[in-house]
Amino acid sequence: MTDRIPVAVLGATGSVGQRFVQLLAGHPWFELAVLTGSERALGKPYGEACRWMLAEPMSEQAASMIIASSEDLAAGGRVKIAFSALPSELAYELEPRLAHAGLAVCSNASAFRRDEDVPLLLPEVNPEHAALVHAQRARHGWRGCIVTNPNCTSAGLTVALKALQPFGLRRALAVSLQALSGAGYPGVASLDILDNAIPYIGGEEDKVEWEPRKMLGELADGGVRLADVAISAHTNRVAVSDGHLVCASLELEQAPNPQAAAQALRDYSAPLASRDLPSAPRPPIAVRDEPDRPQPRLDRMTGAGMTTVVGRLRPDPLFHLKFVVLSHNTIRGAAGGSIYNAELLVSQGLI
Amino acid sequence: MTDRIPVAVLGATGSVGQRFVQLLAGHPWFELAVLTGSERALGKPYGEACRWMLAEPMSEQAASMIIASSEDLAAGGRVKIAFSALPSELAYELEPRLAHAGLAVCSNASAFRRDEDVPLLLPEVNPEHAALVHAQRARHGWRGCIVTNPNCTSAGLTVALKALQPFGLRRALAVSLQALSGAGYPGVASLDILDNAIPYIGGEEDKVEWEPRKMLGELADGGVRLADVAISAHTNRVAVSDGHLVCASLELEQAPNPQAAAQALRDYSAPLASRDLPSAPRPPIAVRDEPDRPQPRLDRMTGAGMTTVVGRLRPDPLFHLKFVVLSHNTIRGAAGGSIYNAELLVSQGLI
Amino acid sequence: MTDRIPVAVLGATGSVGQRFVQLLAGHPWFELAVLTGSERALGKPYGEACRWMLAEPMSEQAASMIIASSEDLAAGGRVKIAFSALPSELAYELEPRLAHAGLAVCSNASAFRRDEDVPLLLPEVNPEHAALVHAQRARHGWRGCIVTNPNCTSAGLTVALKALQPFGLRRALAVSLQALSGAGYPGVASLDILDNAIPYIGGEEDKVEWEPRKMLGELADGGVRLADVAISAHTNRVAVSDGHLVCASLELEQAPNPQAAAQALRDYSAPLASRDLPSAPRPPIAVRDEPDRPQPRLDRMTGAGMTTVVGRLRPDPLFHLKFVVLSHNTIRGAAGGSIYNAELLVSQGLI
Amino acid sequence: MTDRIPVAVLGATGSVGQRFVQLLAGHPWFELAVLTGSERALGKPYGEACRWMLAEPMSEQAASMIIASSEDLAAGGRVKIAFSALPSELAYELEPRLAHAGLAVCSNASAFRRDEDVPLLLPEVNPEHAALVHAQRARHGWRGCIVTNPNCTSAGLTVALKALQPFGLRRALAVSLQALSGAGYPGVASLDILDNAIPYIGGEEDKVEWEPRKMLGELADGGVRLADVAISAHTNRVAVSDGHLVCASLELEQAPNPQAAAQALRDYSAPLASRDLPSAPRPPIAVRDEPDRPQPRLDRMTGAGMTTVVGRLRPDPLFHLKFVVLSHNTIRGAAGGSIYNAELLVSQGLI
Repeated sequence: MTDRIPVAVLGATGSVGQRFVQLLAGHPWFELAVLTGSERALGKPYGEACRWMLAEPMSEQAASMIIASSEDLAAGGRVKIAFSALPSELAYELEPRLAHAGLAVCSNASAFRRDEDVPLLLPEVNPEHAALVHAQRARHGWRGCIVTNPNCTSAGLTVALKALQPFGLRRALAVSLQALSGAGYPGVASLDILDNAIPYIGGEEDKVEWEPRKMLGELADGGVRLADVAISAHTNRVAVSDGHLVCASLELEQAPNPQAAAQALRDYSAPLASRDLPSAPRPPIAVRDEPDRPQPRLDRMTGAGMTTVVGRLRPDPLFHLKFVVLSHNTIRGAAGGSIYNAELLVSQGLI
Repeated sequence: MTDRIPVAVLGATGSVGQRFVQLLAGHPWFELAVLTGSERALGKPYGEACRWMLAEPMSEQAASMIIASSEDLAAGGRVKIAFSALPSELAYELEPRLAHAGLAVCSNASAFRRDEDVPLLLPEVNPEHAALVHAQRARHGWRGCIVTNPNCTSAGLTVALKALQPFGLRRALAVSLQALSGAGYPGVASLDILDNAIPYIGGEEDKVEWEPRKMLGELADGGVRLADVAISAHTNRVAVSDGHLVCASLELEQAPNPQAAAQALRDYSAPLASRDLPSAPRPPIAVRDEPDRPQPRLDRMTGAGMTTVVGRLRPDPLFHLKFVVLSHNTIRGAAGGSIYNAELLVSQGLI
Repeated sequence: MTDRIPVAVLGATGSVGQRFVQLLAGHPWFELAVLTGSERALGKPYGEACRWMLAEPMSEQAASMIIASSEDLAAGGRVKIAFSALPSELAYELEPRLAHAGLAVCSNASAFRRDEDVPLLLPEVNPEHAALVHAQRARHGWRGCIVTNPNCTSAGLTVALKALQPFGLRRALAVSLQALSGAGYPGVASLDILDNAIPYIGGEEDKVEWEPRKMLGELADGGVRLADVAISAHTNRVAVSDGHLVCASLELEQAPNPQAAAQALRDYSAPLASRDLPSAPRPPIAVRDEPDRPQPRLDRMTGAGMTTVVGRLRPDPLFHLKFVVLSHNTIRGAAGGSIYNAELLVSQGLI
Repeated sequence: MTDRIPVAVLGATGSVGQRFVQLLAGHPWFELAVLTGSERALGKPYGEACRWMLAEPMSEQAASMIIASSEDLAAGGRVKIAFSALPSELAYELEPRLAHAGLAVCSNASAFRRDEDVPLLLPEVNPEHAALVHAQRARHGWRGCIVTNPNCTSAGLTVALKALQPFGLRRALAVSLQALSGAGYPGVASLDILDNAIPYIGGEEDKVEWEPRKMLGELADGGVRLADVAISAHTNRVAVSDGHLVCASLELEQAPNPQAAAQALRDYSAPLASRDLPSAPRPPIAVRDEPDRPQPRLDRMTGAGMTTVVGRLRPDPLFHLKFVVLSHNTIRGAAGGSIYNAELLVSQGLI
């Protein structure tokens, strides 16, 4: 395909960067044109510079690409979209410069998620938030833009909450069991997690308590009015490679029985704007009926890792409903989500 | 010591049974006199019949003991206390017969925990409930008795709740990350838990939602008036050998700040009746200040595995207080707890 | 495809049985017609009776199949090939009856591997041994036959040895690090393997010391003359789900340098008889140049799990050559191997 | 005790450094006087600067010690012994300066193990090698000295070989399954080892092939004549916290049957010079009769982690004898070994 849009992956050697490279291989709309990495990796072929961690082999095309500097992108060129797997402090400095230079930055970093005019996007949840790009461009005088995807734990939880929003969300308690790949590479030391669980992930609880409110909120005055749902999060690290589990208890205005809730989750479909994009999860939500599912190892690849899997729907003695959500943290919760965001921007004519 | 009380361990070859055997070696008051096992093991030396799973070697005395039948105990003899690590269905049938035969049955089984006149005991929490033994004896005409310890997840949670009870408990949400030894041996298949977590433990949530209410309740009318606290539990299995973590969010009548809550936990001391018994946890509760503790591998052996460890005290956006509790599930939550119960009975003159 | 050969999987609910079901879905030559299981499972849909352990979902066709009794197959019917994932004692009794009834039994069981006229087959190694089927039929008066695949650890090792046979094999020392799925399900208890390795697998070392000699041997007098290579094996279980590693040291008649050995392994191609069959590994052997490969998690799916992966070729201070072999134990070393065997029989006109 | 010898631990915050601190708490001869650490840790209390990884809590005395610079030790002071857990490149530069300044450096680093006049010591194996200190002092004009303990995998293997040396060692093949703590902290990334094994440890095989030859050799001409045994090693990393397993196959001059070999191992006692020192393993070698032992989790703490555990003695089809050795890598194979070395030096009047 000769008309594919040239794209870059920023921070391509890390664990999320590798997922970008993997998921972009053979993408129908995007063509992997530039990979950037740290100073140490510059000028080396990606196949040499990158300690590839995925079970599927690296594509030969990617292996032979020479690592460039993220700076070079800011100087302009044919690349139209930059997928950012940068650490937040780098993202904070670089992403606006790329947006200024005309690139659409689809970022997995947390640096700008809370900015009023930066969309925090899950296309199957709030595609209309993409329109914030206009406000963003007007304010900054950018030709490009920045759009972000949420934290990996917020992603699956928010998809489930969206499907239950018609019952009137009031309060949610969310306790996560998060996978190791969420901490990047090398990330968690093996001696810290073997025969162990760690009841703490720095900065994570704040994100899980705030990000869903923005995504479930409504556009208003060039920004987003946060949804009126209160969330409390406990976040834990466990010895799982990929796939974040969240145990959720919900207080709702109209308490559905578990069957009705399951039906609402099963029936949930993405808005028309995002439903048929290449990376759209098919289905957006899968509901498991077995008592002991979802489980990360068995269910994380549902819908090619883009589907949110829900199970154990049952009444909650304190609130109304409790259940378990599973989402693949480096696919739906990171690289796959960013790519889905870029597809939405393209389909909306924003790129 | 020539006057030690002869005791038996029922179901001595299983994972909780082995902890009983380990903890009773060298106990100052009790002398291991009888070990019982399944039909297959009868007549064999314990050292042969038992696939010992603990890192500390089996005592030589235990190794040479010949496995007896639990039935024989019912026929009478010198044994005064039976520590029961039986499965519930066996416990249901056998424990009353042993109580009738004059033995004090200190049981880890769930069979009788909900009986009105059966104490569900954590000596550092509710030693006064031991008095139910009188009602029990009167009703059944037993010379012996049955006392139970709670489910391994309820144990640590209830100790923490007791210390916070002065702030007025209203509602508690508890999400566990439970160790493999809680499922016995062989228990969880390795293929089920490697690179995985299982968001379901059969029957566990009911226990965690009910048992703390009995232990925190008051004696009334020959039974216990359940404490007026509502609990919702999510229980999960993770790849940890020993040590159950519980993430808890509490609604309280008077909301303490985290420092005041930490102080109340640190200051908690067991009632006089149980404070100085041989197995009393020293201290009953340890509070960790680090952001990422307690952790099972690092903290489960605090106070020889009898201390409840609490950390991450912080405000809860929905309720008032959230924190993490760790308790060693086969020591404080099972064998060690039963032994502590027996010590209480002896000190109260009930044995 | 209407002309596919109807096949059965015996013992379809176990861990190897599930791989058969997975690999046969959409097979170009074979049509899954019958699934058998234990008495407990009879009459139930496979989707209900089977605790599916694989990350890829069960096919809908398989899920709806009703579990039959292996006995029924012996009564005749349209099934032409029985893939056996039975335990050895059951295989010993049933497989000859099925062969008598006219079925080609492609067995993963060890029961008949050592029988003189039963082929022990790796099609990329010794396809000519399939001819033993004629002797077998003549001796027993069977219309069907029994062919076996080797033990899962012998498989990869033997493929590598075959490629190095031109250098003159004399002695081989093989030390395995074997995956949990090799022990079936539930198999190894999680408490036995967490933070542990077990230096023993019952019966395994005998197989690894003998089976390669049969596969590397020559047809002679209606049987196989064992290859004149002495093997010593140490077998260990480690906390890996799938993929057996073998550390091998070889004494050879002509000692190649590691580069020449690598070249011989890379250049190895299956005999014409087996090279282009549907399940033929592509390539038969992959050689990794990195110092720390192959690794089970990263390399076990090479060639859809059928390729033998070799790495770390280096001189051996005692013998001549040392290296590491990786093979997927439930694909190349079990179900995939049996299916490849069946394809060979079909292509040779033996079915 | 007022007369204990003041000692320092160099590199006290790392994984071996922590073991030194733990094992020296309450040591009858040595008093922990100085802890050194990297620049980042200087001036902080050890309890703050160190991420303590051991399940037993840090002693309060150690927690309050202020981290010093290793340089300061070279300036002199009351410390007599420096236990070195430094990385090799630092050890290479610093240890000679400390020896020059009069300290006895008992080092776990590999920097000087191969020096002709530096003892490579296992006191239960070759205490007579301590005499090399005289040659060392003469050559360098040092008042202090450097003695080293072997690599953690060589340690257990060499103890076993020593006990079998009377049968005439010729050739040994050793394949290790090594624990994570051998790689230090943070060491192996969790994503690298979960559901995986790594058949490579940089530089390790050379050490295992050479170090036992020095320890089993004889003093000659102010150095050591290497033992005439050829060793081939394969080294692997597995998901175990502590405890290295080695599978060994031996060629011997007189081939003992497994029972005679077991007896020789059981009967092995340390030379008089080292037998009764405080850290002497009791017994030096334990032999397990069960088919599936030793196992790291169950057996690593035998003899407080100082005993070498051997099992699975059986004939080897290629050579004569095969078996499995287990040794605790951070106790016998590192910190405990160094302390035992220091005790030997003291008892020999070399400190």
